[in-house]
Order: sequence, then C-alpha cells, then structure tokens
Amino acid sequence: MEGFDVAQLAHVEIYTPKPEETYWFFHDLLGMEETTREGQSVYLRGYEDFYHHSLKITEAPKPGLGHIAWRAASPEALERRVKVLQSSGAGQGWQDGDLGHGPAYRFTTPDGHVMELLWEVEYYQAPPAKRSPLKSRPSRRPLRGIPVRRLDHVNCLCSEVAPNRRFMMEQLGFKLREQKIGERGVEVGAWLSVSPLVHEIGLMRDATGSRGRFHHVAFWYGYPQHLSDLADLCSDYGIRIEAGPGKHGTTQAYFMYVFEPGGTRVELFGDTGYLIFDPDWKTVVWDVSNESDLEKSTIWFGGRLPETFYTYGTPPVEE
Amino acid sequence: MEGFDVAQLAHVEIYTPKPEETYWFFHDLLGMEETTREGQSVYLRGYEDFYHHSLKITEAPKPGLGHIAWRAASPEALERRVKVLQSSGAGQGWQDGDLGHGPAYRFTTPDGHVMELLWEVEYYQAPPAKRSPLKSRPSRRPLRGIPVRRLDHVNCLCSEVAPNRRFMMEQLGFKLREQKIGERGVEVGAWLSVSPLVHEIGLMRDATGSRGRFHHVAFWYGYPQHLSDLADLCSDYGIRIEAGPGKHGTTQAYFMYVFEPGGTRVELFGDTGYLIFDPDWKTVVWDVSNESDLEKSTIWFGGRLPETFYTYGTPPVEE
Amino acid sequence: MEGFDVAQLAHVEIYTPKPEETYWFFHDLLGMEETTREGQSVYLRGYEDFYHHSLKITEAPKPGLGHIAWRAASPEALERRVKVLQSSGAGQGWQDGDLGHGPAYRFTTPDGHVMELLWEVEYYQAPPAKRSPLKSRPSRRPLRGIPVRRLDHVNCLCSEVAPNRRFMMEQLGFKLREQKIGERGVEVGAWLSVSPLVHEIGLMRDATGSRGRFHHVAFWYGYPQHLSDLADLCSDYGIRIEAGPGKHGTTQAYFMYVFEPGGTRVELFGDTGYLIFDPDWKTVVWDVSNESDLEKSTIWFGGRLPETFYTYGTPPVEE
Amino acid sequence: MEGFDVAQLAHVEIYTPKPEETYWFFHDLLGMEETTREGQSVYLRGYEDFYHHSLKITEAPKPGLGHIAWRAASPEALERRVKVLQSSGAGQGWQDGDLGHGPAYRFTTPDGHVMELLWEVEYYQAPPAKRSPLKSRPSRRPLRGIPVRRLDHVNCLCSEVAPNRRFMMEQLGFKLREQKIGERGVEVGAWLSVSPLVHEIGLMRDATGSRGRFHHVAFWYGYPQHLSDLADLCSDYGIRIEAGPGKHGTTQAYFMYVFEPGGTRVELFGDTGYLIFDPDWKTVVWDVSNESDLEKSTIWFGGRLPETFYTYGTPPVEE
Repeated sequence: MEGFDVAQLAHVEIYTPKPEETYWFFHDLLGMEETTREGQSVYLRGYEDFYHHSLKITEAPKPGLGHIAWRAASPEALERRVKVLQSSGAGQGWQDGDLGHGPAYRFTTPDGHVMELLWEVEYYQAPPAKRSPLKSRPSRRPLRGIPVRRLDHVNCLCSEVAPNRRFMMEQLGFKLREQKIGERGVEVGAWLSVSPLVHEIGLMRDATGSRGRFHHVAFWYGYPQHLSDLADLCSDYGIRIEAGPGKHGTTQAYFMYVFEPGGTRVELFGDTGYLIFDPDWKTVVWDVSNESDLEKSTIWFGGRLPETFYTYGTPPVEE
Repeated sequence: MEGFDVAQLAHVEIYTPKPEETYWFFHDLLGMEETTREGQSVYLRGYEDFYHHSLKITEAPKPGLGHIAWRAASPEALERRVKVLQSSGAGQGWQDGDLGHGPAYRFTTPDGHVMELLWEVEYYQAPPAKRSPLKSRPSRRPLRGIPVRRLDHVNCLCSEVAPNRRFMMEQLGFKLREQKIGERGVEVGAWLSVSPLVHEIGLMRDATGSRGRFHHVAFWYGYPQHLSDLADLCSDYGIRIEAGPGKHGTTQAYFMYVFEPGGTRVELFGDTGYLIFDPDWKTVVWDVSNESDLEKSTIWFGGRLPETFYTYGTPPVEE
Repeated sequence: MEGFDVAQLAHVEIYTPKPEETYWFFHDLLGMEETTREGQSVYLRGYEDFYHHSLKITEAPKPGLGHIAWRAASPEALERRVKVLQSSGAGQGWQDGDLGHGPAYRFTTPDGHVMELLWEVEYYQAPPAKRSPLKSRPSRRPLRGIPVRRLDHVNCLCSEVAPNRRFMMEQLGFKLREQKIGERGVEVGAWLSVSPLVHEIGLMRDATGSRGRFHHVAFWYGYPQHLSDLADLCSDYGIRIEAGPGKHGTTQAYFMYVFEPGGTRVELFGDTGYLIFDPDWKTVVWDVSNESDLEKSTIWFGGRLPETFYTYGTPPVEE
Repeated sequence: MEGFDVAQLAHVEIYTPKPEETYWFFHDLLGMEETTREGQSVYLRGYEDFYHHSLKITEAPKPGLGHIAWRAASPEALERRVKVLQSSGAGQGWQDGDLGHGPAYRFTTPDGHVMELLWEVEYYQAPPAKRSPLKSRPSRRPLRGIPVRRLDHVNCLCSEVAPNRRFMMEQLGFKLREQKIGERGVEVGAWLSVSPLVHEIGLMRDATGSRGRFHHVAFWYGYPQHLSDLADLCSDYGIRIEAGPGKHGTTQAYFMYVFEPGGTRVELFGDTGYLIFDPDWKTVVWDVSNESDLEKSTIWFGGRLPETFYTYGTPPVEE
C-alpha cells in the first residue's frame, strides 16, 4: 500500500455534562478500562487499544467534541504535515502534550473541528493482574458489559462537506473512499481513510446548517452478535438506541447508534465492512438524488434512520 | 500508514489432480464464481474480489502451488522491486501476462516458491444479471454454498524459515508482524504483511525438511457463523476438516482448515483477527520452547492441531 | 409437561398468483426441497422437517391461506378433538387425505381460517444422494440460498381476537402464553402454544376489520447470522423486507419479515426466543394502551414496524 | 404433545471444595445472580431462570453431585410418581423443603444418583433495580461475564446405562430420544426428555466402572457467539476448557465443556440443537461399534473429545 503521513486515529476527546453517567456507559456497559483520571477528565481505552487511551471524557456544560487526535506515520511525516498546516493557516500551534502522548500539533478543519497530530505515544502497560497470555492483546478482556475492542472512526457534521473533505485530502493526505452526491450535485457525505479501512473519518452535511458539530465516535467489536447483545442491554437499562443494528450500503458497516447519557452519539461497529487493498481505488459515488441509491446507500438492511440522524449533533442546536 | 511497494495479494494458482471435484469444492461449496476457463485452467473469484480472478485452478498430476501473484502499489513501485529482484538473482524475468492481468515479473523465494509481481489488472465487470445495487460489491452474493467474500492470505512451508522471511522483508518490503522461535532459537514461523492485516503471507518450518512446499491458501468470510455453517456442510458432504473452527493465538485468526478434494489445504477465515495500525509496531514474538507460549500461540481456543498440520503440504512428500 | 391433544403444526398451504417466483423464493432463496408436484401445487420441506412436506404452494388468482394443518398427539387425541369440533359446529368433515398424510378433519376458526387436524403422516425418506450421516437430520443440508431448517409457526389476522383465541384454547387445547390488551381492554394479540414454544399460532387484530385473513407463516433458522445473511440476499435480489432483523418483546423472537413474490408475508425466525417449561405458566400480559408496554412489546430492539404490519394481510383488501 | 408427569429440570446442587473460586466462576464469569446464602450453600440463578434458584453450590471436601431436582407437571402428577417410586423401593421419603421450594420427594437412581421431585416452587421476584421491562424476563440481563440464560440439562455417569435409563423411563416417564450402542450390543449412552428438548438428562457409561458419578450440568445461551466469547475469557483467565466449542452429532448440541475451579464439569450450550415435536418419535440409534457412527455421533464438527471426557466424573476416582 502506498504511503500516508497520517497513520491512524489515535484518540478522541468528548465533553459531557453528566460525567458519572457517561463514565458508567463507557466503563460498565462498553467495558472500557480507566487508565487515569485528572482534573475534570477521565482517560479510557478498549482492551485491544494499544496506547494510554483512546477516549478522553471531560466534564463541560454541554456535550460536544473536545478534539480528534491523529498519529503520524513517523516523526518526519509529522514534520511534513505540520509545515503544510502552518502554511495553510489551519495550524494553531504545538501543545505540550497531554497524558499519554508527546507534543501534538493542533489545527482546525474549515468547519472548526479541533484536531491534533502527534507522533510520540505512551504504550499501555497492563499491571500483572490484567496481563493477557494472548501476546497481541495489551490487556485481558474485561468481565464487564459488552466490551468494545478498539476505537474505530469519527464522523463530523459540516456546514458544507466539500471544503472539509478537500482539507482532509490536501492537508492531511486522506483518500476519498465513498461519496454521496445529492440534489444539484451538492456533496452530502464523504468517507475518507489512510488505511484499508473504508474510513477513519466520515463527513456529513449538517441538516441544520450549523458549523463544526460532531456526529459520532465509533468503537469496534468485529462480531455481529455483540451489537444484538448491546442492544438487548440498552433496552434493559434504558439507554436510547437511535438506529440499528443494521447494515449501511455506504461503507458496508454493520452499525448501531446509541446516545451515551451525556448526549454524544456513539456508533458500535459489528463487523469489518469491507477492506480496500486496491492501490488504485476509484471512489464509490452514490447519487442520492436517485431513489435507489438513496435507499441502498443509507440502509442496505435494517430499520430506517430517524430524522435525528441528520439533525442531531453535538453540541445540540440551541432552540 | 507508511508506504509499501507491494500493495496486496492478487491471486493464487493451485494444481489439482481432480479438477472436477476441486471445481465443485470452490464453486458449489465455497460459492466462488467462474470467470473463465482456458486450457487446463479455470479462473474463479469470490463475490467481493474486485479483479478478474483470485484463484486459478490448473489440472496437474499432483496437488501443489502454481504461483502466488502480488500486486504492486504503483507502476513505479513495480519497477523498483523488479530492479531489486533482478540484482539479487531471485528474478526469472517477465511473463507476458495471463488472463486478467498485464505483464508480471516472475521470481522465486529461496525455498523455490514461484511468485509474480504485477501492476496492471483487469477489473471484473459483472454482467447485468449479476450486478449488485451495493456499489462496493463487484457482483451479487451468490446463492450457492457458503460463499467466501475474498482471497485473504497464503502460507508457505519452508525448509528454513529465516532466509525466506528475510527475502520477503528485504526484497519485497514486507513487515514482520508475529514470529515463533523454537528450541535453540530456531525460527519456526513468521507472519508478514504490507497492510494492517497481520499477514498476507505466513511462513512455517516444514517438519519433513522438504523445500518449497505449500501449506494453504485462505479465503475470508468475516463472520464466525459461516465457519460453523461450512463445517456442517463439510461433515454432511464428506469433505475432510483438518482442524477448527478455533482461534489461533498467533494472528488471532478464527480459523478452519479443510482439504479440497484435489489435496490442497484451504483455510477459511471467520473473522478479522486484529488489525495493526501502529506505524511503529514491535513484532510479537512467541517462544514456543516454552509450554505456555506454545499452547497459547497455536490454539487460543478450539481443538488441538493434528500432526498433519506440521507435516502435510503440497505436493505431498513421496514415501 | 402436561398433555395436549394437538402435538404440533404439521404444514401450511398458501396460495400464490405467481407460482414460479414463489417457488424461486422458497426453493432457491430459502433452500427448501421439493418433494412432489401435483396439479397446481408444489410440496416443499425444510431440511430438518421430518414429514413429506411442511409447505404446500398452490396457484390461485390471489395470495392467501389455503389451510393450516395440525398433527394430533395420538389417534385417540384426534378422535377426542373431532368430537369437540363436531359438536361445536366448527367442523366441516373428513378429507380423504392429501399427498403426505392420511385422513384429516377439516374445520374453521370463528373468523373463517381453514384448518385441519390429522394423525397419520408420511415420513420423508431421502434418496441415497440426499441422506445425511447426521442421523437426526432427515436430509442433507442443501447448498442453496440460506436454507431454513423447519416450519415454526403461523399468525392469523382476526376481525376480533378474543373469540378466535378462545376457540384455539377450548376446541383445540392451546395455552395462552402472551397477550396484548389495548385501549378499553380490547384484546389485540394472543400467542398460543401446545409445547414449550411460546407460540405455534399468533392471533392479531386486523386493523382493516377484515375477517379470516392470514398474517404470516414462519420458518426457523435458530441462528441470528442467518437473518443477516438472508437480509443481505433480499437486498441484492430485490425481495422486499418489511421489517427486521430485530427482536420483539412479545415472544422474544429475533425476527425478520419479508414478502415472497406472490404476496404472502413470511417470517424468518433467527433464534429460539425463550422456551416455557413451567407447567403453571401465567400468561404474560402487555397493556399496550401504555406507552412503555407498547414500545417494548412490539420492538425490543431493531427498527420500528411499518404501518403495513398492521394492515396488510392475505388476501389483500380490495380497494 | 402428550403428557408427562415430570415437567422440567428444576435445579441442581453440586459440591465444591473451593467455594470462593466456584462462586467466582458462576457469578463473575457465567454472570449468574445470587439469590441467597445459607450455611455452607449459595443459591444462584441465570437471568432467565424463573424460580428461586437453578443452582445450589455447597461446600464439601470433594466435588460431586448433591442432588438433581425435577418439577412435576401438577400436584397430582407428583403424587402419582411418588407412589411408583415408593413401591419400587427407589424412594427415600419426603424432605421438608429447601429454600425456594416446598416438599420434595427424594429417591435414587439404580446407580445411586440422588434426585428429588417437587411441585411447589417459589418464583424469583426481582427487586426494583433488577426488574426488566421485558415482561417474560424475570430479571435484567446482568453486566457481568457472559451471562447464561437458564439451566438446561444434566448428564450422569453410570456403571451400566441400561438399568438407569429404564428407571428414568419407567419410574419417571421420560422418553428415549437418542441412544448409543457399542460393542456386543452394550448400551453406552442414552438421552432422555419430557419435552421437545432432546434431553433433560443424559446417561453415559463410566469408563472407570464407578457407580453414581456426575458428568456435567449444562447451562443454555442459545447463541453460538457466546461460546466463543466464553472460550476467549476462559483462556484469558485460566479456566480449563476440556473440549469445544464444537457440535455433537448426538443431540446436535453446539457445546463447550469447561471445569469450574471446584472440579465439576460444566457444559455451555450455544444453540438449541433440534427440537422434537413428533409425538411418535423413533429413538435415533447410533451404532458406535461402527467407525462412521462413532465419529459422527461424538463430534459432528470441532476438535476431538479427550480421554478425560470418558473417565473424569465427580467425585473423581481415588487412585
């Protein structure tokens, strides 16, 4: 596979007005492990996440995106991308480093989503009681809830998709894997990646016209049954399921969307969809002004997506 | 992710002394589609394989490996690698191209496995009756057997693992993801890749000391239930299951091994194992002179591997 | 478990105006085996159905229910029930026997659904090529589609549920396992059985007020993945999915509803729900005039049921 | 279905020399709920077990069977069976009732396994915090381990199968569903039930010739994935898996056998196998002196059963 300067999604920070309930959701229901707590933040990881954390939860008055952190492919790749970001005016400068990683270069997308790029990471070291004899597993599979394995991707709402999509491609080197084009040729969705995954980031038009909102963060199970298991628990414990389990045509994801108690939408990913190994991949384009593409791209099978899927993001729109 | 000159496993050719039974196995039981037939060969693909074929079956007196074809990441990457192969003496020269692809550069591993590297491929174009409304799916899911989705990886037996593993790394740019070291530090297994997959090729020591034999070709389902479904059919239709379904510690593969009627071992891959996105991955090393690593690396869960797993390869050893 | 004079659902006859497409659906997609063809009818069975057939498809101008056949627990049980039916006026007399079974006593529910009760059955005898070495499996698992294992249950629409429910209990000895009560105490649904299954028959209020229509016939897989597999094929081959995969609260069924091309709704049953072994079972009553019971009983998880679920039955209502 | 005086397996008591570790296994790993603790005993239930408990764990010097309790189909059925047991000499008299049930009549099988028959049971009443909105679920699905749903069946080792099998049929009214006959016509296994389940009790010849030992108690999941999930956890947490996941030919069970830390073998049941609704069922007979029947009945797919499967029972044989 050809080279990318961005290697992977490293972690995501979300804000929550209900830190205890949000913690219960990720820790007790999704079985994530707490690495550290500091100030108003808790750092968590799935049991197959290799670094210090993949999720940072920070208390705040409203739900929303803190930031999205990407790991560069090498120190040189980091340097290359920082130069590009600096010269484009998107850059906001270096951060000293948070718990779990070294210096990070902060920047914003045209819509204003805050992102960071970094190279140095702290690998999670399990204490003896949590070590797994499975050597590629950084810690034992937890005995709580339906434990997610690792962070998978993020999805950002955009006032306009095209400039944000171009930003990810031109400034960061992502490839466009799938795309949705609506009425009058307007781009309404884009799925981009730096690996055989169909996307590490999705961009979708915000039906409310708002700027810079967050749609969801996704964690990976890899097994369809685990979405049923989690759905069963959500109904039993009063967690609201927005949609799914079902299969999108776009990305072929076997998905479920739920709202964690603080208000952030979380996607659970029940299989691997498909992987792109073709180095000469031609973007899959869905023309959603056309009924068949609209229907098949959105829901390949499973119930329809509710209106909120297109209008709700974090922070919520003030009324 | 950093760059690799080899992008992916493109196709595999196997020999069979029983072409009709072998065809039944891949077409009727594994649901593969026939693209073409020519001379003593049939060309097949899984319904999510994008190119002309991923498997070529050629009639021959004995089962064995024909060749393994890799697709380069670009025309320039192909050129670069051909120069390396030519200068190392492993190269055997250009082939005119077979059905479904352009010129291919042929070479052999130190053990003698025949491989090819190519850039130009013919994309499969489904006839109208086989077109899927799922735009990332090159043809409809077949209504036969338990249809495999795509080619996944190959595994070669080697008289000595180390030189063949170094060849894949140095001549072709593969990375070593996992490794097994046995008594007296002898390398007994290596799993290498050019993508987040843990391996596109595995190399294992041939317990018979033979050179250049083939262990297996693997196809991907992505769903654990499909291994049970196939196992059920194998028992019902008299296809010999060698091992599994079960889970290896090495690669975390949820596996099943069966023998197609011509004698080639075929692995069916029931989930995605784990994916490596860390650009600074440290090889997972199992010390199989140690009882715990030996057991956990071989079988994480599921029945034991039989002796044949270490001694049977194609072509079979003459007695 | 205490005794029941009715032992099981034996077979169902449906009418179709599109016999070829309907045959394709059951034979190619649901993998059923054809036992015989006679006149305008084809007789089919799932590979774990033990008798001559579990489904009879008969060509007719409109889709609809032919009849539902129950097998008695013994010749004496048959006799006992015929007496009850005769004296109640529901009986219509003996039929000579159809292909695959002996004399059957025909009767109708208060709403007019045609049913039969019989004792003598012809066991399916697989020809040598279809015999399974699995001795409790009457024929090999087919290599076509996503093969259903056996007939599971039927569901009838009723102009009023209560009299039909009482009929099944009083005339035939069914037990009421679950029940839905709506506004003003009106019974809107009833699930009855003669075994640990929650239901061999469901009765639901017809929102159109029609009499004697059929809601669906259900076949059993037992494995959740098979509903996803079938849903995937339905989308690929243009078969309309009405709802699911999802899980009902009522009966705990993991369900999917599709329309076979002739117009009959078919349910596919993806797990076993729960089984009732308690000999002193208290009917589970859902009060669907209450929002929580309404929502949880209908959909425990999965997308909402569309309006058609309550209004479409066979034969369709003339407009 | 015709009547049976025994309705169901109500609960099982096992002895353990390691009560804390055994409790961890059932409570933390199998997600069972503790109802009560009294003296040296703890009472547990799966989240879909309706009564006070389905498992009683009692501290004792050695692992072994305490007793097996059956619920009668009615007070009259209980009375009928007690008379039979009394007159046959197998009866041992009435027990006053244990926690969770009323008077129980105690008796022993010819091999000496202790059993009880009872009618009155205490239904489990969940405290508000554990109540499920799913009305057929007696308590919420727990957030611990891979929670079993309910007790399924027991399996007893016998010095001779035939007299014990006849006892279950003649004294208690069980039906013989499947049977294994070995060399010289000796009966080596019997699977009996009083419902469409293939067995609530299995009887297998003890290869050590011991009398009255216990082979296993089985709990039900209903979903194949849960066996993989549990197997993964067992390997991670050091619980010994004896065999599976795999599928037996006999009973069609998708099984896994593990040893709880106190020494009792526990089977986990990953699907429903098949159900018997035919009121005129002919026992499936496997002739295991014949190689094909031996292999197919034991393992339809999955790894071989180890020697311990035939020789280890509780209490273990003294050496």
